[in-house]
Amino acid sequence: MNVSTADPAPSTRPSPRSVRARHALMRTAERLYAEHGFAGVSMRMIREAAGHRNNSAVQYHFSSRDDLLQAILEHHAAAIERHRARLVAVLEERGEVSLREWITCVVAPGIEHHIELGTPSWYGRFLAQAVVEPGLREHARRVYTSTPSFQRLDRLRPAAPGRGDDELTERHAAMVRLLLVHMSADLETELAAGQAPPDEAERAWRRLGDNLVTAVLGLSSALLSQ
Amino acid sequence: MNVSTADPAPSTRPSPRSVRARHALMRTAERLYAEHGFAGVSMRMIREAAGHRNNSAVQYHFSSRDDLLQAILEHHAAAIERHRARLVAVLEERGEVSLREWITCVVAPGIEHHIELGTPSWYGRFLAQAVVEPGLREHARRVYTSTPSFQRLDRLRPAAPGRGDDELTERHAAMVRLLLVHMSADLETELAAGQAPPDEAERAWRRLGDNLVTAVLGLSSALLSQ
Repeated sequence: MNVSTADPAPSTRPSPRSVRARHALMRTAERLYAEHGFAGVSMRMIREAAGHRNNSAVQYHFSSRDDLLQAILEHHAAAIERHRARLVAVLEERGEVSLREWITCVVAPGIEHHIELGTPSWYGRFLAQAVVEPGLREHARRVYTSTPSFQRLDRLRPAAPGRGDDELTERHAAMVRLLLVHMSADLETELAAGQAPPDEAERAWRRLGDNLVTAVLGLSSALLSQ
Repeated sequence: MNVSTADPAPSTRPSPRSVRARHALMRTAERLYAEHGFAGVSMRMIREAAGHRNNSAVQYHFSSRDDLLQAILEHHAAAIERHRARLVAVLEERGEVSLREWITCVVAPGIEHHIELGTPSWYGRFLAQAVVEPGLREHARRVYTSTPSFQRLDRLRPAAPGRGDDELTERHAAMVRLLLVHMSADLETELAAGQAPPDEAERAWRRLGDNLVTAVLGLSSALLSQ
C-alpha cells in the first residue's frame, strides 16, 4: 500500500505496515515532547524526525495533534491495564485486602510498565506534561482511571472513615495520581540524564515504587481518618 | 519615554510606565498560558492580547520567551517570600517548632498568595506547567526554594529519623513541592470554571491548605520514619 496515494482516513483494519508507521510516529512524538516540551515541538519536527518526507504523513495517521497525543496516552494506558488486571485478579481471589495491598495495586502497574520500557524512556515526562495541559488533562485522567481493572479495584477498596466526604475523597485521589505521575517523571529524567547507571534502573524504579506505597499509605491514613 | 524609539535593552532604572507595561504583558501571558497551555500560545498572541500594535513590544521588555516565563515566576515567588518571611520570624522568636508548625510554614505562604490573587487567577495553572517544562523546571524549583526565608526555615526543621538518606530526603521534598503546586492548580481550575462561588474562594483555599498540611504530615511521618 502506498501511503501517499491512499485514502487519508485510516481503514478499520490498518495494514501491518500502517500500524508500524503509526507507532513509529507515536514514539518519535513522545520522545520530542519529553525532551523539548509540548510548546517546543511542531508536527513538522515530528514528521522529519520520524523520517517522513511526505508533508501529510502525520495527518494520514492522526487527524490532529490532540488525536496523536491521545493515541500515545492510550497505548501506555493499555499496557498498564494488563499489569493491573493481573494484580487485581490475585486480590479478588483472596477477598480480604489491606490498605497497603490496595495501594500497591494502584502504584505497582505504572512502575512495572516503566521497568519494561527500559532506559532511556520518555513516557513519564510526556504524561507529566499531558496532565497539566488544559485541553488534555481531563482526557488523560479518564484514560487511566476508567479502565476495567480500576473499576474492579475500586470494589475491593478497604473502608476508610473519611469516604463520606466527596470533596476529600476526590482530593485524596488527585493527590495520589499526581504523586505517581510526577515522581515517575522525575526518576525518568534522572535515569535519562545518566544520573543512575542503566543496570540500576530497575532497582531505582522498585525503590520509587516502595517509597510511593509508603508515602501514599501515610498520606491516606492521615487525610481519610480526620 | 517613547517605547518604540528607546534602546531595546531596559535601563537599570525603568520608568513607571515601562514597569506597568512589563507587568501588563506578564499578566496577559500568564492568563493565556493558563488557559491555552504553553504549546497553544505564541509571543504574537500575547502582544495582541495585551493591546500592543508594535511588533517588538514584547522583545523590548523581555529578551526571550524564557525571560518572560522567568519574570512571571519571580514576581510570584517574591510575593510568597514576603508571606513566608513573616511566618518564619514568628517561629524563630519561639525557638521550639513542631513538625505540623514547620509544614504549615511550607504550605501556608502559597495559599495566602492565592487568596490575595482573588478569583479567577491564573498563576497556579501557569506554575503547574512551568514545573514540567523541560527547559524551565530547574529554574522554577530554584526560584521558590533558594529564597532567604526558605533557608531560615530549613534551619528550624525538626529532626527526622530518615534525614541521613539523601535520596529519600530529596524525594520527600519533591513530593511535598508537587502536592502544593498541582493541588493549587486543580483548585484554581475549579474556581475559575465557576464550580465554587467566588465568595467561597477564600474558604476553599484555606480548606485546601488544611488538607495539604494533614496530607504532608502523614506522608512525611510515614516516609521519614522508615
